[in-house]
Amino acid sequence: MKRTALALAATGLAFAGSASAQSSVTMYGLVDAGIEYVSHAGPNGSVVKLTSGGKNTSRWGLRGTEDLGGGLKAVFALESGIAIDTGKLDTDGTLFDRRATVGLASQYGQVVLGRTFTTTYDFMLPFDPMGYAPSYSWATSSTATGNRKDGLFSRASNAIRYDGNFGGLKLGATVAMGEVAGDFKSSSKYALGVGYSAGKFAAAVTWDRQNGAGASTSPADSTDYIQGIHAGASYDFGNVSLFAGYRNYKKAFTTAAASERSDMYWGGASYDFTPAFTLYGAIYKQNIKGGTDADPILFSLRAQYALSKRTAAYLSAGYAKARHGQNVSVSRDFVGFANNQTGVMAGLQHRF
Amino acid sequence: MKRTALALAATGLAFAGSASAQSSVTMYGLVDAGIEYVSHAGPNGSVVKLTSGGKNTSRWGLRGTEDLGGGLKAVFALESGIAIDTGKLDTDGTLFDRRATVGLASQYGQVVLGRTFTTTYDFMLPFDPMGYAPSYSWATSSTATGNRKDGLFSRASNAIRYDGNFGGLKLGATVAMGEVAGDFKSSSKYALGVGYSAGKFAAAVTWDRQNGAGASTSPADSTDYIQGIHAGASYDFGNVSLFAGYRNYKKAFTTAAASERSDMYWGGASYDFTPAFTLYGAIYKQNIKGGTDADPILFSLRAQYALSKRTAAYLSAGYAKARHGQNVSVSRDFVGFANNQTGVMAGLQHRF
Amino acid sequence: MKRTALALAATGLAFAGSASAQSSVTMYGLVDAGIEYVSHAGPNGSVVKLTSGGKNTSRWGLRGTEDLGGGLKAVFALESGIAIDTGKLDTDGTLFDRRATVGLASQYGQVVLGRTFTTTYDFMLPFDPMGYAPSYSWATSSTATGNRKDGLFSRASNAIRYDGNFGGLKLGATVAMGEVAGDFKSSSKYALGVGYSAGKFAAAVTWDRQNGAGASTSPADSTDYIQGIHAGASYDFGNVSLFAGYRNYKKAFTTAAASERSDMYWGGASYDFTPAFTLYGAIYKQNIKGGTDADPILFSLRAQYALSKRTAAYLSAGYAKARHGQNVSVSRDFVGFANNQTGVMAGLQHRF
Repeated sequence: MKRTALALAATGLAFAGSASAQSSVTMYGLVDAGIEYVSHAGPNGSVVKLTSGGKNTSRWGLRGTEDLGGGLKAVFALESGIAIDTGKLDTDGTLFDRRATVGLASQYGQVVLGRTFTTTYDFMLPFDPMGYAPSYSWATSSTATGNRKDGLFSRASNAIRYDGNFGGLKLGATVAMGEVAGDFKSSSKYALGVGYSAGKFAAAVTWDRQNGAGASTSPADSTDYIQGIHAGASYDFGNVSLFAGYRNYKKAFTTAAASERSDMYWGGASYDFTPAFTLYGAIYKQNIKGGTDADPILFSLRAQYALSKRTAAYLSAGYAKARHGQNVSVSRDFVGFANNQTGVMAGLQHRF
Repeated sequence: MKRTALALAATGLAFAGSASAQSSVTMYGLVDAGIEYVSHAGPNGSVVKLTSGGKNTSRWGLRGTEDLGGGLKAVFALESGIAIDTGKLDTDGTLFDRRATVGLASQYGQVVLGRTFTTTYDFMLPFDPMGYAPSYSWATSSTATGNRKDGLFSRASNAIRYDGNFGGLKLGATVAMGEVAGDFKSSSKYALGVGYSAGKFAAAVTWDRQNGAGASTSPADSTDYIQGIHAGASYDFGNVSLFAGYRNYKKAFTTAAASERSDMYWGGASYDFTPAFTLYGAIYKQNIKGGTDADPILFSLRAQYALSKRTAAYLSAGYAKARHGQNVSVSRDFVGFANNQTGVMAGLQHRF
Repeated sequence: MKRTALALAATGLAFAGSASAQSSVTMYGLVDAGIEYVSHAGPNGSVVKLTSGGKNTSRWGLRGTEDLGGGLKAVFALESGIAIDTGKLDTDGTLFDRRATVGLASQYGQVVLGRTFTTTYDFMLPFDPMGYAPSYSWATSSTATGNRKDGLFSRASNAIRYDGNFGGLKLGATVAMGEVAGDFKSSSKYALGVGYSAGKFAAAVTWDRQNGAGASTSPADSTDYIQGIHAGASYDFGNVSLFAGYRNYKKAFTTAAASERSDMYWGGASYDFTPAFTLYGAIYKQNIKGGTDADPILFSLRAQYALSKRTAAYLSAGYAKARHGQNVSVSRDFVGFANNQTGVMAGLQHRF
């Protein structure tokens, strides 16, 4: 979905002196909230609550571009994640926890520096039928066995990110520096992605690795890190679009026996009944390797009615189930207190 | 006073594609600061300080509306309370502690979801001659006996708020969900209001209740909650306007003996010497029920000179007095160290 | 350098009703980041990191002015310091830690109230060839012996600031109230400045004093406070500009023996190879009075290429050396782990 935003009329107003400038600064945002019912939300039962960001995380931000001539552009973005049920920042003290970048763009691609979403996050997003919706997608992470999340490497501080588009080919890389003196490997993080699209077909694969604090001792592979490998594909049949995705997750510790591995599979579809009314459905299945694990599954549905290009009402439902009596939750944002959980949310989203 | 704000020229600029759209996003704010003298501000005497928000709390925010056709509108607001003497947020970590809402509006009224001022707050505001000014109004709360505030239920997270206007009749309701699993009553909060205006006369009554954490055990009324009942009225004689208000406050505990009750009465007037120069005066009297309480009284004056529609200079003075040797303060924002306190503030306010 | 910013088209749009208004609200900002190498960054060696604000601290803000008629203007500013490597606020919880002010301006000068940069900060800024760049200027502060900073009084809360310009003469004063009840002197802070410019020559001197918490007991001078005296001068020869500055620093304690004194001297030049390409160089030398102190010295260079009026790429290098085996750092923002340190940073800055 194309993000509509408020262009602040920069061109020809503030920079009238620079004749070639096609500059703009945009203030934009998204406010999303609704009433959510969640079963087994605590030891004593279900809850009805006001939830911020059922379809997409609420946010506001500034972004801009300046034409530097010769096909070169300066770009920046400052984006804040907010919870509109409380007015709080998503991350206390981190005003721009979603994006804080400056960079350059040309025909060869774009490089930005700062805090940013990772290559993995943006390359896999188009292949989740629920669009990473907190209510209810497990594409970024689920509540797995115990405290495990086995999730997607989504954001990074201290990062350099490259994105290039060459016809149907899309290349991306993120390097986030560990910033440990005398040890360039510890705490450093990497993500690589390749995407391809041709007509109604699109696909991507990504690889990422997040080194732990002690990853510098050799041999490197025996020390702690998290590795994620993703693959996704989609096909647009017109009114119907199909989506599939896969995550291979590995958390390696110094002692190999403690390592954690899992697979996450998902698939789903969207169907446009009318241009305004769309139904989304998805199934997410996680297979925790070894042991008597939760191996949870999630069934998700969303009926969405666009009141305009910027405003939509939606009704989402999710049902999650875990094996072996483990607890499970429909959402990555809270935990469950039983081996199944149902969530239903009626929400409203407005983009500005 | 009508809030003038900067319209960001959204219409026809960013959304030129939607022919019927009468959309706007507005960035706005209010910066208010001055020099304040307060007697008995500490054990050692008085203080002279720089105070933010003597007339109104400093703030900045974003708000917008989108015409969805058929009389329906999408609305949102994000509003941050700030202290410009220090640059700090009013509430650490809560970026939009004043408002963070999304909703829909039609001829039948407006419903918003999120963090918001309560029905009580907005319905009673027109009847305080000092306009809830920190320097010096007690309409929202005072410093009563001991640590008691006995104040107005002003803001709520996790809220659904309705506002409807039907000729001279105004209806309002706020429901803030407690979000305690298995216990829909605990921590939930409610406010209802009815307002009426006819020509130069206006009046309103409100009722609200804030359930405590243990309010779910029966019988409900024997457990902890705070209840407020307000009534207010005003009459505009032309250059002179008269105002009166009343609060019945009850804080109920599990043991009835511990319950706290009080009445707050206020009355006052504004007088326009010239279109730019206005004098405001008010008396606030609190009656704490039972015991040898402070039963404080506050006399307030403000002379205000409008330098423009958006900028005003003001000189405020307040004198508070308590009975039975209790301490008292002219402002809800700080405490006093004697049975009387005088405050004088010269301030400047600018709205943008 | 003139700060280009986005004018939000206030004039004639939102305030069309006030015929004389020449009002504007501006949203602006600066995003600056780069890759920095620093030697001796920890006990184990050097680091390569992503640094926010190598040339200037990253920020965003709102500022505005309203014409009140008769030469009088209302002014306000709200400015937030941010670290774009992490998205965090420079100061947790202080949204507008750089500026939060409201005031009035006329031909006789400008008075603002709130949180602000001090007179010292703004009067001395033009005389630092590196422009207070974190990478690498010591004009605001250095890492001196032990934990000493011996730096410049840069920002103040609870402040009243005056600035007047009378031909080539510039006068400034900042008073920041201590706000200690019964003790107007404790914690209060003062800064005074005089500047002069004639053609290509400019100079300024400032004096400031920051009283400690116990400064009210007499005799005042025997108790704790920090005093700074600065002098600076510059001359613009055309392509070449020369700069020099001096700081006399004194931290007085109740016992005179514990007092800390130092001198900081700096000098440098800028050279415009082309209108877009400029080289800056500076030397900073601190003389800690008494003892076997670090007495550190810093050599700084910056090559800067303007990609536009708002966007520049830069390469900065600094080399710092301390005496007597003390540790030293090229930057006020981090510490060193040896008696010398080298920093090199390649960065990009964009103003909006």
